[in-house]
Amino acid sequence: MNFKEELEKYQQQINKELEKYIKKPKSPEETLNQAIAYTLMGGGKRLRPILVLATYQLFKQDIEKSIPYALAIEMLHNFSLIHDDLPGIDNDDVRHGKPTNHKKFNEATAILAGDALFNFAYNAMSEDLMHSQPEELNRKTKILNEFTKVVDRMIAGEYLDTEWEGRKITAEELKYIHENKTSSLLKLSVRMGAILANCTEEELNKVTNYANKIGLAFQIKDDILSEEGDESVLGKPVGNDKKLEKCTYVSQYGLQGAKDILNQITKEAVSELDTFGEKADFLKELAFYIENRNK
Amino acid sequence: MNFKEELEKYQQQINKELEKYIKKPKSPEETLNQAIAYTLMGGGKRLRPILVLATYQLFKQDIEKSIPYALAIEMLHNFSLIHDDLPGIDNDDVRHGKPTNHKKFNEATAILAGDALFNFAYNAMSEDLMHSQPEELNRKTKILNEFTKVVDRMIAGEYLDTEWEGRKITAEELKYIHENKTSSLLKLSVRMGAILANCTEEELNKVTNYANKIGLAFQIKDDILSEEGDESVLGKPVGNDKKLEKCTYVSQYGLQGAKDILNQITKEAVSELDTFGEKADFLKELAFYIENRNK
Repeated sequence: MNFKEELEKYQQQINKELEKYIKKPKSPEETLNQAIAYTLMGGGKRLRPILVLATYQLFKQDIEKSIPYALAIEMLHNFSLIHDDLPGIDNDDVRHGKPTNHKKFNEATAILAGDALFNFAYNAMSEDLMHSQPEELNRKTKILNEFTKVVDRMIAGEYLDTEWEGRKITAEELKYIHENKTSSLLKLSVRMGAILANCTEEELNKVTNYANKIGLAFQIKDDILSEEGDESVLGKPVGNDKKLEKCTYVSQYGLQGAKDILNQITKEAVSELDTFGEKADFLKELAFYIENRNK
Repeated sequence: MNFKEELEKYQQQINKELEKYIKKPKSPEETLNQAIAYTLMGGGKRLRPILVLATYQLFKQDIEKSIPYALAIEMLHNFSLIHDDLPGIDNDDVRHGKPTNHKKFNEATAILAGDALFNFAYNAMSEDLMHSQPEELNRKTKILNEFTKVVDRMIAGEYLDTEWEGRKITAEELKYIHENKTSSLLKLSVRMGAILANCTEEELNKVTNYANKIGLAFQIKDDILSEEGDESVLGKPVGNDKKLEKCTYVSQYGLQGAKDILNQITKEAVSELDTFGEKADFLKELAFYIENRNK
């Protein structure tokens, strides 16, 4: 299987499991369930859950054991997209080339669909905890706790992203937002897979370093796409960052400067995985995929 | 100690623990932390966490063991208040006699403060899980899972409360909203305390019946207060339900009819606890307190 096939296989597996999860009998709150499905099944790249599964598979083969945590991080991510898009926050009308949740439904529905997805994440993990072997519970409660801490940072990052909009911020402040809002989730994804698979401390450090670097790469690439991406591919307007005078890697280092940092950091991420040999090929390719993606 | 003193002792204990929890070092997201504290420490009755502690004390004395779950349910409750008050949902300006969170701060801050409080609830429980004895973990993961399911229902209830506003709804629909949005949380509070204390199935059934009845009583009393309460005591406008043609117990059964049901259901709640003898005095008084409260 080449990288693209493997990526699609992971995506299909995640989509199938998400579909299963949100399939509910008809109920009075039907429209709320539709709003949840609209965003959750709305064509995301599934990068975060793929990181969980692929990192788990660095160490173990029984991939189904990592599925609940893969779903949880994707649900969390979709919750944050819905709330970030709200009129009171970023006020975005389009996401993945379609109307945002509050545009398609309404604001109340979008707020509550976000809340519900947030809770789904904890439900998925708690279901797994209930059905775990005693010897797994230490690792899994550790993951749950790390999850809650990362979410806390993600919300703080989103808050500052809104709070500081339209004013010049320092490179240090930019880093603080990105680390909290974006990188921390990619790091969590990788760490969940690794901790679940019961890897060693040294192995955990390696994959954590990899995750930190692709997290940074991801954000830099986002900033580059926001500046020069293709609107029709990206599915959202381009050039808004500049219009809003948002502080980004491009505004700080220029377009070429940002590209150079991206290239350097991607190489560093990949070399963190050398110790794992061939088994790490997919995660290495994933780093290049993040560098070269056009959406 | 009489009932009032005991109630205040519980409230003080909860407030002290919440203060401890939200005390954070100075950070760039200072204002977000202030918004969280503004609502969380804004003078709630602490009914839900008191139910956790008092039910736990029906069976065991080491009350500190139930504190994380008491905090979690109060954090959850405050998250739901902030989000329900948002312009996109109930659009309320006043809560506990003070400006609502989005009025005091702004909409983005309120949405994110709500999200953060929601997450605090899971963080408090996950911290406790991490530091639990292996033999407690079965009970505690069961509680966590039940918590996620109740939240799911709470969000669905709030959704329908908004969705169905301004149209005539049936008594059955009214019941569906109340059970999901309000009663389920009181029931969860009581059950968390009981399950934590490792009570028997029979004892759990008894306190669950009690909880179902006070949950219903709580909602009926809310509807009565919304109709004839004292605005200055209640801290929110009176008569809005009628104006919005909201379906309530008062609109369904009339003011006197609602009061009769409230009285009957409170007596039934109290009698569920007879089997526990004197130890249940506080919970019995609490049922009367719910019936007779003026805010």
